[in-house]
Amino acid sequence: MLTEHEIQFRVRYKETDAMGFLHHANYATFFEMGRTELLRAQGGNYREMEAAGIFMVVVRLNTHFRKPARYDDLLTLKTRIKRVGAAKLEHEYFLYRGAELLSEGESVLACIDSTGKVQPIPDSLRA
Amino acid sequence: MLTEHEIQFRVRYKETDAMGFLHHANYATFFEMGRTELLRAQGGNYREMEAAGIFMVVVRLNTHFRKPARYDDLLTLKTRIKRVGAAKLEHEYFLYRGAELLSEGESVLACIDSTGKVQPIPDSLRA
Amino acid sequence: MLTEHEIQFRVRYKETDAMGFLHHANYATFFEMGRTELLRAQGGNYREMEAAGIFMVVVRLNTHFRKPARYDDLLTLKTRIKRVGAAKLEHEYFLYRGAELLSEGESVLACIDSTGKVQPIPDSLRA
Amino acid sequence: MLTEHEIQFRVRYKETDAMGFLHHANYATFFEMGRTELLRAQGGNYREMEAAGIFMVVVRLNTHFRKPARYDDLLTLKTRIKRVGAAKLEHEYFLYRGAELLSEGESVLACIDSTGKVQPIPDSLRA
Repeated sequence: MLTEHEIQFRVRYKETDAMGFLHHANYATFFEMGRTELLRAQGGNYREMEAAGIFMVVVRLNTHFRKPARYDDLLTLKTRIKRVGAAKLEHEYFLYRGAELLSEGESVLACIDSTGKVQPIPDSLRA
Repeated sequence: MLTEHEIQFRVRYKETDAMGFLHHANYATFFEMGRTELLRAQGGNYREMEAAGIFMVVVRLNTHFRKPARYDDLLTLKTRIKRVGAAKLEHEYFLYRGAELLSEGESVLACIDSTGKVQPIPDSLRA
Repeated sequence: MLTEHEIQFRVRYKETDAMGFLHHANYATFFEMGRTELLRAQGGNYREMEAAGIFMVVVRLNTHFRKPARYDDLLTLKTRIKRVGAAKLEHEYFLYRGAELLSEGESVLACIDSTGKVQPIPDSLRA
Repeated sequence: MLTEHEIQFRVRYKETDAMGFLHHANYATFFEMGRTELLRAQGGNYREMEAAGIFMVVVRLNTHFRKPARYDDLLTLKTRIKRVGAAKLEHEYFLYRGAELLSEGESVLACIDSTGKVQPIPDSLRA
């Protein structure tokens, strides 16, 4: 199964801050977009997962911000599955502007049902 | 019934943009906070309304941005009920920094149930 | 000169709310993206405009929300220049999911310099 | 010097997501609010620091999300200075709903000037 995927997008004006930089709170949103598109590229669909009562929640998120991005920068995000445990899914992220690495992140997700009870990671995410 | 309410809050760094101003997309969020607190001041609670299956959705929102706000500005938002119709609720909003009017807005909300069907405005919002 | 442009994008999970809908505060951000890309399609570049000391600020924004969008919906935004005045630029916006019109908006922008003084609309936006 | 401070705020509707939870990208914004208010409680002012050409940028941010929050929850954020290095400032964060710990975070900030060059941490943050 595919374990790595890239997306490209531009920094929106709304995402900048008074320093003139992409505000750091947006990285969590970008990493989430990366997971959505990695799953789609694998043939899955997170919206259908939720409709089936399976929810992936972020338990840990660590980010290292190396260099700032700015409005209208064209960014490339590489999202990679690092480990699939019994009840946890680990990703890592690399955000680039061209060849320049701007930031790195890693996250741990858990799988819950609609009542909030922890569930095993679905086989479809395992392969 | 109380038809007007004021809240105060500071502009968050995250809410600024590369111009150094409070980004205009945040005003819709502030107006929503104003409605939440006006309803609480009236003795109601929007969270409980949703739990009871009644949802208020924004149908129209018009905003006039007169002067910019900046990071850490202490703002005062006045939220006022303008009209309660059979199926629509109209508010108006005035955002101040001290005595200085920064922006004005008005919105129309409709009431729907969990299936999206339009409902009459609850009596509790009417009085 | 080109006066109309379309962009496509997906609703991000971050942009949804507890109702399960795309939250209405995001529309202002989408309209801004539409303007950025319309200007780029015209051969201009808003980032370079700001670097040259010309800032476009939103003075009025009116939105009519007709139907909700949801997470992962693929949306099409049509951005159109409605009027170019001496000191004001008017746009209109139509947001679609496929053939279905979800919302309409219109905005008025003014041109200011870095001190906040109103400037005539640059000839490059006029043509 | 004061090294710990608490703020209280409510979860905004805009900050929720389709799961009905406070979306995790908002925690970075809350931690930033915590730093702003800790600095103010110490007698400092981040806005004035920026006006004087000193910018604090987030270099690392780690968050552990233990339990979800929901719309209208009244949250308490404890912000604590963990370490003041020559060029780095470390904070830790504890987010509560009543007595219940919802999440923990830690961040490393660096000090830069307006050209992006790293600067020593100002004495005013040191004491």
